[in-house]
Amino acid sequence: MRLTRYFLPVLKEDPKEAQIVSHRLMLRAGMIKQQAAGIYSWLPLGYKVLRRIQQIVDEEQQRAGHIPLLMPTLQPADLWRESGRYDDYGEEMLRLQDRHKRDLLYGPTNEEMITDIFRSHVNSYKDLPLTLYHVQWKFRDEIRPRFGVMRGREFLMKDGYTFDLTKDAALHAYNRHLVSYLRTYERMGLQAIPMRADGGPIGGDYTHEFLVLAETGESEVFYDSQITDLTFGDRQIDYDSVDQCQAVLEEFTSRYARTDETHDEAVFAQVPEERRRTARGIEVGQIFYFGTKYSEAMGATVVGPDGTRVPVEMGSHGIGVSRLLGAIIEANHDDRGIIWPEGVTPFHVGIVNLKQGDNSTDSACDAIYAELQARGLDPLYDDRDDRAGAKFATMDLIGLPWRITVGPRGLAANKVELTNRRTGATEEMSPKDAIARLEQVYAPVLGLTVQDK
Amino acid sequence: MRLTRYFLPVLKEDPKEAQIVSHRLMLRAGMIKQQAAGIYSWLPLGYKVLRRIQQIVDEEQQRAGHIPLLMPTLQPADLWRESGRYDDYGEEMLRLQDRHKRDLLYGPTNEEMITDIFRSHVNSYKDLPLTLYHVQWKFRDEIRPRFGVMRGREFLMKDGYTFDLTKDAALHAYNRHLVSYLRTYERMGLQAIPMRADGGPIGGDYTHEFLVLAETGESEVFYDSQITDLTFGDRQIDYDSVDQCQAVLEEFTSRYARTDETHDEAVFAQVPEERRRTARGIEVGQIFYFGTKYSEAMGATVVGPDGTRVPVEMGSHGIGVSRLLGAIIEANHDDRGIIWPEGVTPFHVGIVNLKQGDNSTDSACDAIYAELQARGLDPLYDDRDDRAGAKFATMDLIGLPWRITVGPRGLAANKVELTNRRTGATEEMSPKDAIARLEQVYAPVLGLTVQDK
Repeated sequence: MRLTRYFLPVLKEDPKEAQIVSHRLMLRAGMIKQQAAGIYSWLPLGYKVLRRIQQIVDEEQQRAGHIPLLMPTLQPADLWRESGRYDDYGEEMLRLQDRHKRDLLYGPTNEEMITDIFRSHVNSYKDLPLTLYHVQWKFRDEIRPRFGVMRGREFLMKDGYTFDLTKDAALHAYNRHLVSYLRTYERMGLQAIPMRADGGPIGGDYTHEFLVLAETGESEVFYDSQITDLTFGDRQIDYDSVDQCQAVLEEFTSRYARTDETHDEAVFAQVPEERRRTARGIEVGQIFYFGTKYSEAMGATVVGPDGTRVPVEMGSHGIGVSRLLGAIIEANHDDRGIIWPEGVTPFHVGIVNLKQGDNSTDSACDAIYAELQARGLDPLYDDRDDRAGAKFATMDLIGLPWRITVGPRGLAANKVELTNRRTGATEEMSPKDAIARLEQVYAPVLGLTVQDK
Repeated sequence: MRLTRYFLPVLKEDPKEAQIVSHRLMLRAGMIKQQAAGIYSWLPLGYKVLRRIQQIVDEEQQRAGHIPLLMPTLQPADLWRESGRYDDYGEEMLRLQDRHKRDLLYGPTNEEMITDIFRSHVNSYKDLPLTLYHVQWKFRDEIRPRFGVMRGREFLMKDGYTFDLTKDAALHAYNRHLVSYLRTYERMGLQAIPMRADGGPIGGDYTHEFLVLAETGESEVFYDSQITDLTFGDRQIDYDSVDQCQAVLEEFTSRYARTDETHDEAVFAQVPEERRRTARGIEVGQIFYFGTKYSEAMGATVVGPDGTRVPVEMGSHGIGVSRLLGAIIEANHDDRGIIWPEGVTPFHVGIVNLKQGDNSTDSACDAIYAELQARGLDPLYDDRDDRAGAKFATMDLIGLPWRITVGPRGLAANKVELTNRRTGATEEMSPKDAIARLEQVYAPVLGLTVQDK
């Protein structure tokens, strides 16, 4: 994309309403615009990152064998009356009526609706296991929306629902989600630690939240420092293997890691003192096995191998897609702006032309731009007639991980500068070498397409 | 995808509530499920087609230089009070209040919000031309929703908004949209005819609707038969060229083609009698230049070259993304089911194993499945233990354009059958040749990635 053809309304001043850095930077980088309290437009740069995040989520869910569908944003109240949650949910549920005075609500989550889909179409244990998920806009009418997209009212969530015949099978589905989430967050450049969570009114031991450590996190967290040494890396997992998924669960959840909701000082005290850590965290996902709560209430049963009907075992598993942008920025920024991890950056590299209007500099930039595109990379070319300093400041603010700087002096020796946003390290090299380097850097990011089993 | 791992709840009986063929077939093929009047879940097969359609729309919009963003589904009523449409819109607008009793609405369209974004961020004619678009769920509270996704209440629309300094420039943006829409519909295997439309309360000569001819269309249409001979084909257009876009507009709109709203018998009578046609059509898009209606009401001005502020010239341009599924099926089906055009088919080819459980047939199917995936194709492998007749009926119903049938008898001679869904023509050939043929068929569909200018 050439910047003169793009819509990137960066702000020069810090917006007053932003209390935390991710909110401030998203506004300053022209990524979002607030339309009402907790309701945002995703301007082109923000939308591009949102799409990249959604794509990673989609790829990793499908790699785990989960099937995408899409449920609507509005739901009939009657479904929620069946589960009993219509009355329980309280004021966070946005309720409305259509012109015929029928009660609707803007879905805050989808357990009821997916259970309805299941009971309408699945009849036999032979159609299990089944995991259905969607990535859809939700609404929760928070009393005080704040922190930008981190605590918005209209937000994008991936929510997946598992259906199994037995509790053991449902727990394998739980483990499969844990594995897929570890992969998902690592591809985004995030360390998200699974922490034992509170089952809420449903109870149960099988729920973990995934937390990204950040000073601005809403939760206090307590953990064994060994846990931050764990990485999933590029290990190959067979998602059908109960043992392999169970082993990953044990590896990542056997050390102490809890939020303030489940923290237990007595248990924490057993961690060697030098490894005890207290910090703050941002919740970016949760997995939850809840058994037959909804299937019993709503009559979602299957005929088992012995011919009798049993309620299906369920779990629900969520990733906060839109809030991930905030979390990634909280964990990746400096005083000059955002520093995108390569897996989610809106553009792979910025090209800064130091002498716009100079024929040979312009044509060198055009050639680099075209060649990057030909290799499948997505460059942002700052072709404005502006000072170098202003161009650098924009690139730093919007946080592209790499920058190629092209000027007449360097070109005379067939050199451009390749700068790393995070380290600031700059190397001089030929345009050809710079392109080859970027191709190499991004190969693992671009090469990840998923095939069905 | 292996069918045993998928969720494809086909119905054996015709659903009673469906009045038109596309609605009936979408329900029978397990593509949608109604959740409330005019509100649907998109089951996996339906969602897959929806995504393919959205991707074509996105690619063609970006090829034309239009910039994607995403506005929220809920909007503050105050924006619509500024334009005067909050009171004008009537009962089709779904109005609601949040917990603080603030008036919101579920957006039926986005002129007000995009004008708000524009006025907040754009100040100078130097930032023009600009076209911003999004693909987002909308709600219109139709009094009698029907015909499935063709006339739903919650529906997916692409709506794009153009901003220009002068009327001439705005009309070029109009023409650019017309060209991009012709390309878009043709890639979906549809002939959508631009017909002169009614400007409604705003008036103006610059609006066309795109109609697909189909017996079940909601509008009566009148046209010169020469118009159905026109195709856009694979011509290369420079979207920046005023002349090239204008020439396409003239070619595709100079013959008589109008809906009942704008039909004029006297003008129609000038078409030679043997070329006059009356038919029914489904509206799948509309382009509209409306000048300064919103920019004046909402104060969206830019500083022109002479230093004075002028209201920006605007247009809005829509494609009915979710309703396109219905339109495509109305135009492509037979008594056995859907016949997807290759550009939008959920899976590129179905594989039918005639003897599931037979080692050599199973492994031949596995090899074909893996090889198709390796070539970038997306096969659906019916690996159920079921009769051949049932497998054929499912493939015909869900409408995959191609089917490979694999049985032990053919394999003994290294042969499989390749069947075309539309013509029914079947050829025997080696698995290798069948794969090569499909790769060739789909090359134009898969090869269309778009690069920024």
